[in-house]
Amino acid sequence: MSDLRPTEAYTQIYTPPTINGDFKGKHIITVDQFSKQDLQTIFDATVSIRKRVRQNDRGLSELCNGKVMASLFFEASTRTDLSFQAAMRRLGGDVISASNGVQFSSVYKGENLADTVRAAGCYADVIALRHPQVGSSYQAAYYLDLLNQQIQNPTVVISGGDGIGEHPTQALLDLFTIYDYKKRIENLTVTMVGDLRHGRTVHSLAKLIAIYKATNTRICWVAPGMLQMPSEIIEFVKHEGIETYQTEDLFEVLGESDVIYWTRIQEERFGNIDDYDAIKDSFIMLPSVLDQAKSDAILMHPLPRKHEMGGPDDHDQLDANPRSVYFRQMENGMFVRMALLAKVLKGVYV
Amino acid sequence: MSDLRPTEAYTQIYTPPTINGDFKGKHIITVDQFSKQDLQTIFDATVSIRKRVRQNDRGLSELCNGKVMASLFFEASTRTDLSFQAAMRRLGGDVISASNGVQFSSVYKGENLADTVRAAGCYADVIALRHPQVGSSYQAAYYLDLLNQQIQNPTVVISGGDGIGEHPTQALLDLFTIYDYKKRIENLTVTMVGDLRHGRTVHSLAKLIAIYKATNTRICWVAPGMLQMPSEIIEFVKHEGIETYQTEDLFEVLGESDVIYWTRIQEERFGNIDDYDAIKDSFIMLPSVLDQAKSDAILMHPLPRKHEMGGPDDHDQLDANPRSVYFRQMENGMFVRMALLAKVLKGVYV
Amino acid sequence: MSDLRPTEAYTQIYTPPTINGDFKGKHIITVDQFSKQDLQTIFDATVSIRKRVRQNDRGLSELCNGKVMASLFFEASTRTDLSFQAAMRRLGGDVISASNGVQFSSVYKGENLADTVRAAGCYADVIALRHPQVGSSYQAAYYLDLLNQQIQNPTVVISGGDGIGEHPTQALLDLFTIYDYKKRIENLTVTMVGDLRHGRTVHSLAKLIAIYKATNTRICWVAPGMLQMPSEIIEFVKHEGIETYQTEDLFEVLGESDVIYWTRIQEERFGNIDDYDAIKDSFIMLPSVLDQAKSDAILMHPLPRKHEMGGPDDHDQLDANPRSVYFRQMENGMFVRMALLAKVLKGVYV
Repeated sequence: MSDLRPTEAYTQIYTPPTINGDFKGKHIITVDQFSKQDLQTIFDATVSIRKRVRQNDRGLSELCNGKVMASLFFEASTRTDLSFQAAMRRLGGDVISASNGVQFSSVYKGENLADTVRAAGCYADVIALRHPQVGSSYQAAYYLDLLNQQIQNPTVVISGGDGIGEHPTQALLDLFTIYDYKKRIENLTVTMVGDLRHGRTVHSLAKLIAIYKATNTRICWVAPGMLQMPSEIIEFVKHEGIETYQTEDLFEVLGESDVIYWTRIQEERFGNIDDYDAIKDSFIMLPSVLDQAKSDAILMHPLPRKHEMGGPDDHDQLDANPRSVYFRQMENGMFVRMALLAKVLKGVYV
Repeated sequence: MSDLRPTEAYTQIYTPPTINGDFKGKHIITVDQFSKQDLQTIFDATVSIRKRVRQNDRGLSELCNGKVMASLFFEASTRTDLSFQAAMRRLGGDVISASNGVQFSSVYKGENLADTVRAAGCYADVIALRHPQVGSSYQAAYYLDLLNQQIQNPTVVISGGDGIGEHPTQALLDLFTIYDYKKRIENLTVTMVGDLRHGRTVHSLAKLIAIYKATNTRICWVAPGMLQMPSEIIEFVKHEGIETYQTEDLFEVLGESDVIYWTRIQEERFGNIDDYDAIKDSFIMLPSVLDQAKSDAILMHPLPRKHEMGGPDDHDQLDANPRSVYFRQMENGMFVRMALLAKVLKGVYV
Repeated sequence: MSDLRPTEAYTQIYTPPTINGDFKGKHIITVDQFSKQDLQTIFDATVSIRKRVRQNDRGLSELCNGKVMASLFFEASTRTDLSFQAAMRRLGGDVISASNGVQFSSVYKGENLADTVRAAGCYADVIALRHPQVGSSYQAAYYLDLLNQQIQNPTVVISGGDGIGEHPTQALLDLFTIYDYKKRIENLTVTMVGDLRHGRTVHSLAKLIAIYKATNTRICWVAPGMLQMPSEIIEFVKHEGIETYQTEDLFEVLGESDVIYWTRIQEERFGNIDDYDAIKDSFIMLPSVLDQAKSDAILMHPLPRKHEMGGPDDHDQLDANPRSVYFRQMENGMFVRMALLAKVLKGVYV
């Protein structure tokens, strides 16, 4: 059965609630829901939670006792998936998911997303949703709001990525990692490299920097012309007073960058293999390249990584470089998601 | 390796224990195990548990502490699967299942069901089993009884559906939902619609109404002649004094129905596509049809639903109709399974 | 992307830590890490844990509160998988795993094992790893050691089987089961039957018997000539003073055996089907064969079993024979893994 209304249409039909200082019971779907103060609240909560995890704080590990998260991952994203699960568990909550993944998708063949989400909504307090279609988390939120009027136990959705659309928790953990290392979002040169046209993570990070109103921060976008940042993101960012710079040449900006956010360029984006071959070497981060960055620059990557960081030996060398923070960035993902789950489920200051 | 003894044969070899007021340590395989009093016990426990969930009752969420449920789903049934998992978690119990579903089935290629079930039986206290073969839960119970004589920690099985055979927890949640809305099982007109020949849920629900000895309740069966209720169910029900009525025309009985239980007719059941086309429109529940039901009638559906409730816009309109209770029915599934797990694992009054 | 360094090379690059009385924070990769005293420590802890499980000991079920195990199973091994999960849960710990197994493997297509393991390492305290490549757990340990220098929360790996390489927890549960039934490892005749050339479990069990320095214990190896025990294992065992005996004829040693460890011979190992047909019947354990063993002999099997124990009726008869201990052996797996997890995560005496 095809949905008459395409999933993407729900980005128009449904307007996610602004947070405005109150996370409790709100769906988390897009970075547009946050204000600067909300971001700061998440940062503070994340720092606190990370400390309490280290201290084996018993209160923290009982905070979400009795709460259940349904993990609904319609496409593979084990990193996000494991991170959400670990976050929920470390708050004392429980996780449910289809126990026989092999047929997980087949069960839903013919069932629309709205009904699938409502099934999970009947059993869980929060749904972590990953789905390949843009607008899927908007659709989920729309139907959960209808369901919540009928059932005893209301349920919220947190997006774990909507196709090429949004991935708000990744954006939060990225911005937090900058904050974590630099102790500020202001007064930085943030360089984003790779396929900026299709890259969900760089879109959201750019928007969050703007939402944070990061005074004196400059964003440099390094991409082949055809893969540059979409104009709506550029306008959004400029509108908040952030200075931007576009180039095809990393070395124009590498030496000034405080933050280097690396992403992959996918061969499939190029109709012509020659076009890809012509540019690909300029978009591989190698140990010799990283050595040319400032000594206190940080190299971020959303992971997983492939050849955009060379081969395994390059990986090993890059990993050993103190500028590389992508593993800490990954670990921060769990702490950020703990902060968000605690806020959304309990509303508490953590 | 093929089993010499076919799985279905275990419905003859193994006789499930009657409950007779004592659930503790008993396999739950068929509705035939229950008496009217057992059903009332489950209803009372379910009402109590639902209230305690709403109140975040700490005692409830520790009731099955230290108990482990293995979720063995050999075919997709995410609704039943998630519901069992959430039920176990909300009682403080734990859940284990194969972590790599993709190869879950391959591991058992060549291993007979008896050994697979005994593997789970060595680690868990209860197994929620879904398997495509009729008799599979009988077979599981038979071999668990043998295993339990050898190992330290005995294990029970609760059926989550045996092919086209039995699905006792679905039947319990269906009957409970009628009780929940009507405060009685007696003095009702219950209309079941769709493929009554192959429909596991309508078979079991009809039997439970009879087992409940629902005085003055009438069951109306609406189906194309070739898909009518099997004679053994009709006889079972009549034997308990329940009045029944068979028709091909919903509108003969719609206006008198207190409960409308809707199910799908599958095209594949018809050898001839013309036969299917001839009847299919009479078996689609649409908003305009539901409006003709009594204002306090309830529309139930085991879900998932497809075209037997029209298209997505029809779904939306039906969902908004106060007669539609299928989401509450789905939610009740978790509470009923909590009641059953608590009874089977701990035997306590909840 | 291919790894420049093959996974198997990590068996050379990485040296697992010897336990030497202290399990805490150590990767568990190979039986070579253990001394006789370490084995005795695990035995004592397993006996104690099993008793505490039977007593529903509350302290035991809170021992690993707040700890998270990631279950990373790159190939099917539901028995080992469920056993590890149940072990962690029964210690009060939590388990995370990819919720959508069907695409689990695809997510890692192109991602090297080192990065996958580090992802789990960022979120979990311990990783249970099953991977088809020899050396995979060595590689995991190598990269976790690097990661642990960077992140807040260090993580250890416990091997759940490395291709045809090692499977240390299976070896521990096998040796423990002998100890459990015989109250000693010394003064026994232990007969291993089947494909001893490729059989990971028999290699490790033989080594553990030697490591345990089992005085007056004799190991009999029954296999077709081309599938006999590899010379390095024979030498390892002899070097510790264990007497060994090789034969193709079970009946030469059956009557003297205290322990019979049965494994399957896979048809695929034979280039020529006639060679297989010629020997296969000598390597099928049947009820009539078992009756010829000593009355207090024990029959072990790592499971799953197929035709090497005949058909389902043979299985049923063998299962009812008091000499058959393979289900208790399987159950012991959970208790041994509980002991190991408790030691590795908390270092406590349990």
